[in-house]
Amino acid sequence: MPEKKRPGIIASQAEDYPRWYQDVIAKAELADNGPVRGTMVIRPYGYAIWERIQSEIDRRIKAAGALNAYFPLFIPESYLHREAEHVEGFSPELAVVTYGGGKVLEEPAVVRPTSETIINAYFAKWIQSYRDLPLLINQWANVVRWELRPRLFLRTTEFLWQEGHTAHATAEEAHQYALKILREVYEDFMVNVMAVPVIAGRKTARERFPGADQSWTCEGMMRDQKALQMGTSHELGQRFSKMFGTKFQSGEGEVYVWQTSWGVSTRLLGALIMAHGDDSGLCLPPLLAPVQVVVIPVTSDDEVRSTAGAILRDLASAGHRAEMDARTSSSYGRRVTGWELKGVPLRIEVGHRELTMGNVTITTRDLGEKKVIPVPSVAGEVQEALVAIQKRMLDGARSFRKENTHEFTSLDDAIAYVAQGGFATLPWRSVGPDGETSIAREGLSVRCLVAEDGSLPVRIEDNDTMAVIGKAY
Amino acid sequence: MPEKKRPGIIASQAEDYPRWYQDVIAKAELADNGPVRGTMVIRPYGYAIWERIQSEIDRRIKAAGALNAYFPLFIPESYLHREAEHVEGFSPELAVVTYGGGKVLEEPAVVRPTSETIINAYFAKWIQSYRDLPLLINQWANVVRWELRPRLFLRTTEFLWQEGHTAHATAEEAHQYALKILREVYEDFMVNVMAVPVIAGRKTARERFPGADQSWTCEGMMRDQKALQMGTSHELGQRFSKMFGTKFQSGEGEVYVWQTSWGVSTRLLGALIMAHGDDSGLCLPPLLAPVQVVVIPVTSDDEVRSTAGAILRDLASAGHRAEMDARTSSSYGRRVTGWELKGVPLRIEVGHRELTMGNVTITTRDLGEKKVIPVPSVAGEVQEALVAIQKRMLDGARSFRKENTHEFTSLDDAIAYVAQGGFATLPWRSVGPDGETSIAREGLSVRCLVAEDGSLPVRIEDNDTMAVIGKAY
Repeated sequence: MPEKKRPGIIASQAEDYPRWYQDVIAKAELADNGPVRGTMVIRPYGYAIWERIQSEIDRRIKAAGALNAYFPLFIPESYLHREAEHVEGFSPELAVVTYGGGKVLEEPAVVRPTSETIINAYFAKWIQSYRDLPLLINQWANVVRWELRPRLFLRTTEFLWQEGHTAHATAEEAHQYALKILREVYEDFMVNVMAVPVIAGRKTARERFPGADQSWTCEGMMRDQKALQMGTSHELGQRFSKMFGTKFQSGEGEVYVWQTSWGVSTRLLGALIMAHGDDSGLCLPPLLAPVQVVVIPVTSDDEVRSTAGAILRDLASAGHRAEMDARTSSSYGRRVTGWELKGVPLRIEVGHRELTMGNVTITTRDLGEKKVIPVPSVAGEVQEALVAIQKRMLDGARSFRKENTHEFTSLDDAIAYVAQGGFATLPWRSVGPDGETSIAREGLSVRCLVAEDGSLPVRIEDNDTMAVIGKAY
Repeated sequence: MPEKKRPGIIASQAEDYPRWYQDVIAKAELADNGPVRGTMVIRPYGYAIWERIQSEIDRRIKAAGALNAYFPLFIPESYLHREAEHVEGFSPELAVVTYGGGKVLEEPAVVRPTSETIINAYFAKWIQSYRDLPLLINQWANVVRWELRPRLFLRTTEFLWQEGHTAHATAEEAHQYALKILREVYEDFMVNVMAVPVIAGRKTARERFPGADQSWTCEGMMRDQKALQMGTSHELGQRFSKMFGTKFQSGEGEVYVWQTSWGVSTRLLGALIMAHGDDSGLCLPPLLAPVQVVVIPVTSDDEVRSTAGAILRDLASAGHRAEMDARTSSSYGRRVTGWELKGVPLRIEVGHRELTMGNVTITTRDLGEKKVIPVPSVAGEVQEALVAIQKRMLDGARSFRKENTHEFTSLDDAIAYVAQGGFATLPWRSVGPDGETSIAREGLSVRCLVAEDGSLPVRIEDNDTMAVIGKAY
């Protein structure tokens, strides 16, 4: 059965990328705008993807030794004022509770924009000796940062995230842990599960988290060639520990702990949409897809339905996330369009005519490739196809980024290139803080610094430090 | 090695039950008070138990057909005013955001105390036809209800919970679904996983959720013989759907949907502590224990340590949640006291002397029974012991409740009995709304109504409806 393109159901990427993004979110039923400015409703299909993201990241965080906990939503306003850069960074974005239980509160409560301050108030109680270190804590929570230009998943007034907070005996240990999270949790998840080939690098002073000594980041390239900051890991030094008195007894007297914080959020759903989506909608890597295979009986006659049912059971018992779409009151083409929109990696068409030969058709979402196979081969073909799609999506995203990344020696040339899309790399010594100001004037930014060999640059003044310039979400 | 009781480390239940409760929470490192009145910090060990609770309940909710989603934290104040009883019930407890992004908000935003209103605003958009029904949604979220007399886990200004919200074509279908959740999700979890033999029953009009036509509840008896409402499931009728215009086209024209809502919260952690704890601390049912078995090498010599390590690996590969406590710089007795406090169901003592005979000692937390067994039998013994403890804890809680529940015919006698602790049952026709007022004057309440045969009473006027009276948390 020929599948007609249904122009108009969503905008094409080439014609209007922001509109395409909104259309995918609406038509694939991922999310909706909330009634209070900038908030969002995450609909069941969007939330199912988020649950898969959570479970993959949570497993990696636990493997890195951190324990989950939960700290309050409300932070006394005075806590935020203890760290000057931190409060300056967050003040414009705060939501403030002034009434509680029918009364004006004596001290207003801030709805957490992030939890460094409140967590330090407890770390200070819990840490007395080096035996209490390292203290490695993570929480899954909602946070609020008032957004003037909200955009679903990318910038929302309320979003869901995990925030890790750790305390260490030495600066070096904190440094190593911040990098461990960056590499073993975030980069590993983004590359090997999301199939997004991120650049792991260091933020310049200008782009750092408010209150951090050093910020590390994973930056991905979206299909419109813009950069998306997908996750960050910060070395906080002793700033918060000094403000909150988080210290321990060592041989040399009292030592303030060295800290890190790190987070990824529902923004990753935005990354997933924009790194892999196409004009037919979402395109999910098999490892994150809530539905990996959809089995679609074309008609409702007994043989078709019972074969589809048997295939579904086989796939489920082989451990695949499979679903049946037997809504035969809807046309086959209409159903296919719906599953394409939702980005389901594989679909299996069970039709009467093919079935007389003992065959069904399997189609890949990413390439739209069809293959007619005998029913008994389905489970094996599905297993192979899912592995192949996962790899192909990563390879594809890698090639796309490579095609759209160029090395420069002159800052002006780099700016001119990035203004048209893509990433420019050039030696950081050709940029510097003054160059960063010029870049910012063009609406661009240094996304991160990397060593020439692709490793993480430890000292910013290293000669081989390269700046990656892009236009960021 | 004899284990001395360490009086004074926590209060005994008999001497001061509320103090015992606080001591367990503090010493087992379950939670801490937050800085804003009534908020709480859930510490890693408490949160690990909550994660187990979540995973068991989430599985059952999904099996009941509901899908997870996420709705915003902030609700426009006007939404709450649409349903009169609902706003009257929640107004005194609201936290209100009046500033956002540095400005006074045009309309204040309420921090959700529950989400019926905001969810209906979306159900009204998503539901057009009977094909969109039933719509079965659940969310895991934090909610805020300002508490004047907060108590960790039991009543906190912010708590974590799941809230289910559903829409159905008919009243009967909504009724059946509310009961399905009560029985197959809540009661099944509480009895078969938490080992708490709850009474499932109906709330009287006085005790209903604000805005519900009918509220169903699971009530547990704690070790101080008081009642704890552990979970509720409500039939909302068409109240919210009429206020928000949530309707669909049927053959007979437009029909407002019939709705349910239902929830359990971190209060379940309070139930777990109080239903099973004893003077040595927490006592966890194996199915919920984050650590089911702790292996404790008494000394640090090679043979002891390597045997302990081998046992740990065996237990882990058999699928048990096992941990090693090799902190031999701490005394054996001190370590044991710590694990007892944390309620770990089984501990395995690996000592040098016993090991010369090839033996270790296995001790149950609930009874303190010790058994010397040969090393190769450990995995088998652990498996059997965990099953036995789970069953024993439920049986024990059942006997305790039975001993402390009596049937009465006179309301005065029932009140006099419950004033001393325990549950009284008597025919609802001997109580009635007037009797409820007298009961309330004594600080007691009708916890729920049940049919004489223990089933759920469908009509309150049924002759065999029994009232269960208790003193509630």
